[in-house]
Amino acid sequence: MSENPTAGLLVIGNEVLSGRTQDANTRFLATGLGALGIPLREVRIIPDVAPVIIGAVNEMRARFTHLFTTGGIGPTHDDITSECVAQAFGVPWEPHPEAMRIMAASYPSGDFNAARQRMATMPRGATLIENEASIAPGFTIGNVHVMAGVRRIMQSMFRTLERRLQRGAPIVSASVHATDLREGRIAEALGRIQAKFPMLDICSYPFERNGGYGVTIVAKGTDPAEIDQAIAAVTALIASAGHHPMEGEPA
Amino acid sequence: MSENPTAGLLVIGNEVLSGRTQDANTRFLATGLGALGIPLREVRIIPDVAPVIIGAVNEMRARFTHLFTTGGIGPTHDDITSECVAQAFGVPWEPHPEAMRIMAASYPSGDFNAARQRMATMPRGATLIENEASIAPGFTIGNVHVMAGVRRIMQSMFRTLERRLQRGAPIVSASVHATDLREGRIAEALGRIQAKFPMLDICSYPFERNGGYGVTIVAKGTDPAEIDQAIAAVTALIASAGHHPMEGEPA
Repeated sequence: MSENPTAGLLVIGNEVLSGRTQDANTRFLATGLGALGIPLREVRIIPDVAPVIIGAVNEMRARFTHLFTTGGIGPTHDDITSECVAQAFGVPWEPHPEAMRIMAASYPSGDFNAARQRMATMPRGATLIENEASIAPGFTIGNVHVMAGVRRIMQSMFRTLERRLQRGAPIVSASVHATDLREGRIAEALGRIQAKFPMLDICSYPFERNGGYGVTIVAKGTDPAEIDQAIAAVTALIASAGHHPMEGEPA
Repeated sequence: MSENPTAGLLVIGNEVLSGRTQDANTRFLATGLGALGIPLREVRIIPDVAPVIIGAVNEMRARFTHLFTTGGIGPTHDDITSECVAQAFGVPWEPHPEAMRIMAASYPSGDFNAARQRMATMPRGATLIENEASIAPGFTIGNVHVMAGVRRIMQSMFRTLERRLQRGAPIVSASVHATDLREGRIAEALGRIQAKFPMLDICSYPFERNGGYGVTIVAKGTDPAEIDQAIAAVTALIASAGHHPMEGEPA
């Protein structure tokens, strides 16, 4: 997995930090990027505060192959992502001719007001991320992909990006679980299995359901054959601990 | 709100980044901390990778009054939060006498194995965060509060912390919404209302439901009288745009 491209995600907006909104974009993008072979390595959720946004954009775009942002590209005063990205890149923030043309053609006469024109104002050099869910496009500049925060619009923008991004080896995973088993029982032996498969991530997740409990072990990586071998080793370990290993996640 | 204590949250673990798990701890802590007057200012979701954890702990504990972490304190090889926090503070990671005593007394003879003893191994100087949901406690060192990732256990640990943390002025909010209204219609005037109330966060959230659409405006801060004034101004703005303002969030 170490040769794959990587991704960071910056969730911009006060609504997740205040607890008003349950973030759902992270899981969608984590799954979608994993399927493209571009594993998500870090998420930051930050408020609509200019120096915080500018600092995070510059730090994260340097560390990951791609940086995705969601939120803060609407027409209101708290939507400052686009101008902050321009500042982070040190380029002018100016009307984007193509975005202006698309948006002007989509609003009734007189409705394309100054607030809405801000949504067509972008860092110089931006490429549009067209989408079918909203009039206003997102944009890409350098390795930074700026998307809406509204789930339906973000997903539509990501569908456009999917076709453009260079893929890595897809991340695949397999799992095995057992009930009535605490992870502390098998933890040491599991660490030895991880050591045998350094290219995989082998993770242990306790669960509780229907009054019972158990543990799920997940092996994740880019080599399906290695994953099969690791899962076979974990299956044997669970059996040797006197428990019944079951394929996959608990129902 | 600027004089209130602040909080950062570090969500540690591969499961959220891979899309396997929907993070629910952020929303719980955002709401709980807001009620204590300790607004959550940033969340980072990072993998179980030692240098990443150590770097994030040191950066965030310097920037916020409190840093909360969730995840990575179980018995398996991928649970490395505790030793990383010790390294971040530059203190030894060693058996915590009280945690060892509590845990040894809770397991049947022979079951308190080496993997489980790792859960009682902590940075020197740590104070335990007892909880009713699990045998293993969390801990506080300096301004860093290390909690479990499993939701039920994390919530129990936070209930213990709530009684210990020094509170700020509670964050309160009020909202007004209107259907058939796009935020672009009122965005400029809303910016002027925000400028009149610099101590408040006035945010605009478009919504879609039942085939219709609209916008909710939220005013948030520590002064209820200012919030009332801001909401009155927004209500008048919506009415002047020819729409019907309704109290609160859409049903």
